[in-house]
Amino acid sequence: MKKSLGLLLCAALLSSASLAGPLEDQIRYRQSAYAFIGWNTARIKAQLDAAERYNKDQVSAAANAIAAAANAGLGSLYGPGTDQGTGWRPSRLKPEFFQQQAEAAQLAGAFNKEANELARIAAGDDLAAVKQQFARLSETCKNCHSRFRTRE
Amino acid sequence: MKKSLGLLLCAALLSSASLAGPLEDQIRYRQSAYAFIGWNTARIKAQLDAAERYNKDQVSAAANAIAAAANAGLGSLYGPGTDQGTGWRPSRLKPEFFQQQAEAAQLAGAFNKEANELARIAAGDDLAAVKQQFARLSETCKNCHSRFRTRE
Repeated sequence: MKKSLGLLLCAALLSSASLAGPLEDQIRYRQSAYAFIGWNTARIKAQLDAAERYNKDQVSAAANAIAAAANAGLGSLYGPGTDQGTGWRPSRLKPEFFQQQAEAAQLAGAFNKEANELARIAAGDDLAAVKQQFARLSETCKNCHSRFRTRE
Repeated sequence: MKKSLGLLLCAALLSSASLAGPLEDQIRYRQSAYAFIGWNTARIKAQLDAAERYNKDQVSAAANAIAAAANAGLGSLYGPGTDQGTGWRPSRLKPEFFQQQAEAAQLAGAFNKEANELARIAAGDDLAAVKQQFARLSETCKNCHSRFRTRE
């Protein structure tokens, strides 16, 4: 029993599809990734809301962090069963996520696309364009939350 | 009283030096950022340990995520008092961090340098170089942990 569990854990750790291992780790890493994204999103929003002290380097670094997280392969943290269980706190993923994989992939793809676009635009000097693109990115966050995340 | 607290919170939210706001948020964002880095580090390690199925794109994405996090300005999440308090869990930052700012900055700078170098090398095809650079990066993690993080 112990041996097969060990083998299972090894297989889970080595598989490129589920490198995050046990369910609780997947949930905790997922919550960490989105909290990290949330921190960077909040920093960009604060800068856009006080544009007179806009710091391009900070916004660009935050946008790069969001894009790198979006590109990191967060999908591997959505293994079967991760709608149940507790990472830092109980998972808020709706079970529908696993029945609606095409829609989930489409929402994830939209997030990636807009995150990469924001990183590109934030490296430039067009503040209005950054603002517009940040709104587009935020929309993709909201779309996925309202579809696949339980309300608190 | 309420008004001055509100102004204080607004000031904290708007200040570029402390955009993360209240202590607990700073600690939670910090723990999230390092858990996110830890996830990406574990993925690279798993790939290096099973080199026969090395996936350059995945390792490069993970290395980019670590570098973007390192470049994101994590220093702003180390406000005074964040050695106390609870984010996802109680802070493990040692109080010495605030007395040894030059050493902390040196350790953080080393982490940034090696993380950016790993992202650069991981985009290429020299697996031995990735392995060597990953070891260098891991060393900077350990150096900071042993100096400024309490043991569990």
